[in-house]
Amino acid sequence: MPTDIEIARQATLKPITEVAAKAGVPDEALIPYGKYKAKVDRDALPPASAPGKLILVTAINPTPAGEGKTTTSVGLSDALHRIGKKTLLCLREPSLGPCFGVKGGGAGGGKSQVMPMDEINLHFTGDFHAITSAHNLLSAMIDNHIYWGNSLEIDLRRVTWRRVLDMNDRALRQIVGPLGGVSNGFPRETGFDITVASEIMAILCLASDLDDLQKRLGDIIIGYRRDKSPVFCRDIKADPAMTVLLKDAIQPNLVQTLENNPAFLHGGPFANIAHGCNSVIATKTALVMADYVVTEAGFGADLGAEKFMDIKCRMAGLKPDAIVLVATVRSLKMNGGVPKSELTNGENVEAVRAGAVNLKRHIENVKKFGITPTIAINHFYLDTDAEIAVIKEMAEEFGAEAVICKHWADGGAGAEELAHIVAAKADAGAPDFAPLYPDDMPLADKIETVCREIYRAGSVTISSAVRKQLKQWEEMGYGKFPVCMAKTQYSFSTDPTKLGAPEDHEVTIREVRLSAGAGFVVAIAGDIMTMPGLPKVPSAEAIHLDENGQIEGLF
Amino acid sequence: MPTDIEIARQATLKPITEVAAKAGVPDEALIPYGKYKAKVDRDALPPASAPGKLILVTAINPTPAGEGKTTTSVGLSDALHRIGKKTLLCLREPSLGPCFGVKGGGAGGGKSQVMPMDEINLHFTGDFHAITSAHNLLSAMIDNHIYWGNSLEIDLRRVTWRRVLDMNDRALRQIVGPLGGVSNGFPRETGFDITVASEIMAILCLASDLDDLQKRLGDIIIGYRRDKSPVFCRDIKADPAMTVLLKDAIQPNLVQTLENNPAFLHGGPFANIAHGCNSVIATKTALVMADYVVTEAGFGADLGAEKFMDIKCRMAGLKPDAIVLVATVRSLKMNGGVPKSELTNGENVEAVRAGAVNLKRHIENVKKFGITPTIAINHFYLDTDAEIAVIKEMAEEFGAEAVICKHWADGGAGAEELAHIVAAKADAGAPDFAPLYPDDMPLADKIETVCREIYRAGSVTISSAVRKQLKQWEEMGYGKFPVCMAKTQYSFSTDPTKLGAPEDHEVTIREVRLSAGAGFVVAIAGDIMTMPGLPKVPSAEAIHLDENGQIEGLF
Repeated sequence: MPTDIEIARQATLKPITEVAAKAGVPDEALIPYGKYKAKVDRDALPPASAPGKLILVTAINPTPAGEGKTTTSVGLSDALHRIGKKTLLCLREPSLGPCFGVKGGGAGGGKSQVMPMDEINLHFTGDFHAITSAHNLLSAMIDNHIYWGNSLEIDLRRVTWRRVLDMNDRALRQIVGPLGGVSNGFPRETGFDITVASEIMAILCLASDLDDLQKRLGDIIIGYRRDKSPVFCRDIKADPAMTVLLKDAIQPNLVQTLENNPAFLHGGPFANIAHGCNSVIATKTALVMADYVVTEAGFGADLGAEKFMDIKCRMAGLKPDAIVLVATVRSLKMNGGVPKSELTNGENVEAVRAGAVNLKRHIENVKKFGITPTIAINHFYLDTDAEIAVIKEMAEEFGAEAVICKHWADGGAGAEELAHIVAAKADAGAPDFAPLYPDDMPLADKIETVCREIYRAGSVTISSAVRKQLKQWEEMGYGKFPVCMAKTQYSFSTDPTKLGAPEDHEVTIREVRLSAGAGFVVAIAGDIMTMPGLPKVPSAEAIHLDENGQIEGLF
Repeated sequence: MPTDIEIARQATLKPITEVAAKAGVPDEALIPYGKYKAKVDRDALPPASAPGKLILVTAINPTPAGEGKTTTSVGLSDALHRIGKKTLLCLREPSLGPCFGVKGGGAGGGKSQVMPMDEINLHFTGDFHAITSAHNLLSAMIDNHIYWGNSLEIDLRRVTWRRVLDMNDRALRQIVGPLGGVSNGFPRETGFDITVASEIMAILCLASDLDDLQKRLGDIIIGYRRDKSPVFCRDIKADPAMTVLLKDAIQPNLVQTLENNPAFLHGGPFANIAHGCNSVIATKTALVMADYVVTEAGFGADLGAEKFMDIKCRMAGLKPDAIVLVATVRSLKMNGGVPKSELTNGENVEAVRAGAVNLKRHIENVKKFGITPTIAINHFYLDTDAEIAVIKEMAEEFGAEAVICKHWADGGAGAEELAHIVAAKADAGAPDFAPLYPDDMPLADKIETVCREIYRAGSVTISSAVRKQLKQWEEMGYGKFPVCMAKTQYSFSTDPTKLGAPEDHEVTIREVRLSAGAGFVVAIAGDIMTMPGLPKVPSAEAIHLDENGQIEGLF
């Protein structure tokens, strides 16, 4: 079977100008970055027509290999093009750092990929570098302010703004500096996160335009005074210069699928301490340019779809017209109790049937937002007809339609049935769509609502210290913010080994963090890692240019 | 008088495709980055014709405001175009970090600028971001190697490879990390430099192609074992992946002057701990595409021109065919004893005459390389005819020709006389060109030669510890390396207040550093700063987008 990179190298890319023309982007709005990437100048686009239909692709709880949300998004988009629908795909940009760790690639797979995958996975159009620069400019200006007299009276122990690099570098997680005496500044404890964990990434992805971006950057809380009053980015006077650094990064990036259909790849916030969706700007730009917009949200539907609707849609005034829930035989087997090492050991209909409780739970959850999802069975060559049949049967039993999709092997042609069904559903729309909770519910209740309604927790433990913190933020005017849950993606519970459809479990909120610029309160219910490390043998050791100058080892 | 940014905004830029056509870059070799920037794919260029003539622009010892080397390079290049000469300009790329400190702009001035200045001064084509990523990948892989067992037995106290950011951030100069216990690694002292100080910047600018780049990256010494034996980048297995990160950065960047003439801006190493010239690749590419190539070297001729010839030309097999030495009335007055605050207080012919000893010394020095420089008097509107006349008279007395240049006010038209003279000199060539010292001179003698011949030191103090270190490097095979001097740019001596033409002064070599990948030994004779700080009121506070989305405050 050919690898992703082999398939990608056999593909013929079209010049980005041709892809742009297909997407309806006029030449004067196209800002090329090399021959196959471009940014789109939104100010130079033709006047908007009626907005298109928004289709969200989400998934059941995945195996560690992932269940193919991106691949299915690409396949569905290509299939919609094949059946004559004017479509735009909106995905996240992958992060550079992790490519040097375990594996690269956030660009789909098989015959459903976005291209050029090497450039997308490396520097791309420089968006993440711009975020790194903007983030670290603020960091430098904070320490510089303290150095020159600290007239804002920032408490050195309470500086919450750290630094970022787009690199898996565990040695930077926790540092002490500046050392070296008077000329370097006042020592304090601090550290680095990976760039995708920066609040600026979340801000860039939620901002509606440059003005809103600057306003949100100004709203960032960089730390606190001794009396615990907050100090804002705008007190440091960094927000306008940060906006200048981000003025190109805010424009959506245009690339193409293997079938030469247009795709926006823009933004890539963490799906735990942030909301895990591509940018609002890309989605909204796509909606005025195409009749159908296919997008995805990170992790399983319990995290990704919930955040898509409760954070992104709520803030941006968006609503999904149809939802696709990706399931695989492999993930259902795992949710049905089969150990990871035995997932490819042949047919196991009973395990699939047992694991379908996970599928059922996700269907129920998505329905709580007023939409019945369509189940996309992302086909793997080892799947048997009997296993597929049981998924279809179970989906129907749970009130949803399931379609087998072979876009990995066959590209858009393998997802045409899905495309027909989803287009019809999107055309019908989702008049009953509503987020899970209203804006004016107290923050603690919002957390509890997600835990009970989506995770099916029997009890939710929020310590009095955390409750006090939430209360304080409500008094400061942050009570209308949605909550952004950080927990494992492998289970509805906070225990990654509790597969299937656990219920009546306990969720403990260990910590809450305020992302005042992004506009949400992060509730942490599990270990979260904001600066990954490299493994013993990092994939970087294998990444190289071959004798033809082609990149090997990145994928 | 209009400001640089006002002049720049009145200019009409041509699409980079038109600029490329003028430079002889065919479409298939053009990799656009937006509408007005591009990289040039050297593999897609037409076969080389006879190489052009190389013209170096250097300067006398400058005032803190600089004497206009870049502006003169731009003006001369535009003037050569005006008199019908096929010319390419080769400059360095400016660094992002310092733009947020005191002033931005490494893009010329007045009517002699390269464009688009805002993009050039911000992320440009991402070269410096790529260098930051490659540098920090190696850093992460070093700590990761130590974390997983340190089989190379790197001495934690002797890791010399630090991290970099393209940001003025004094708080990162000296840090301790990783803290936080077992999962983060082994604490040690380290720190960050600014990206332009990275050895990778020097390597990128001296490499002849991708293979040479990877070889040089592999040659980097990242630290030492307890027995003081060196550990190389290639022992960490980082060099191939670093090369992948730099594969686009190695291609020259094409932009245009205000008069729409082509310019390569590529690479920007420090002029103290590195050699301060644009890339060898850009210069060599320009030489096969144009009949005349105008380039510059950082700081005054005592540092910049010496390094250009002894490091860049020596390594790359280049030689200058003509040299332009920029002088200003202002700098001669300062070298003649006028305090900084009084430099614009009206005519002072005697001070100019007194300061001409500095000009004389530079002329003598340049002649030691076998070339008589042409003096470009970079005209300032306060200069009087009598002041200009005395410079011309003195230059002639010292055996050189001086030409008044008004390219700041008039663009290329203001430098036509210079262009005619320099083109004629370049056509005649420099058959007597030779570097200052041979490859096989011992390292300590090379240092002493530069100090005595160029700086005119009466004594050169090299401690026995430093001599032992140099000896050791010679035994390790680094004896053929040229030396790269790090000292103040304001004086021939190591004391920035000793203006004019000091002699018989003492130079003390405090420290030597080996840049085994770049291929030189740095000899430090003064304070050098590899991570600048921000001032009390950083220019970042004034940088913003105006109501039309134009950048204000950057220049």
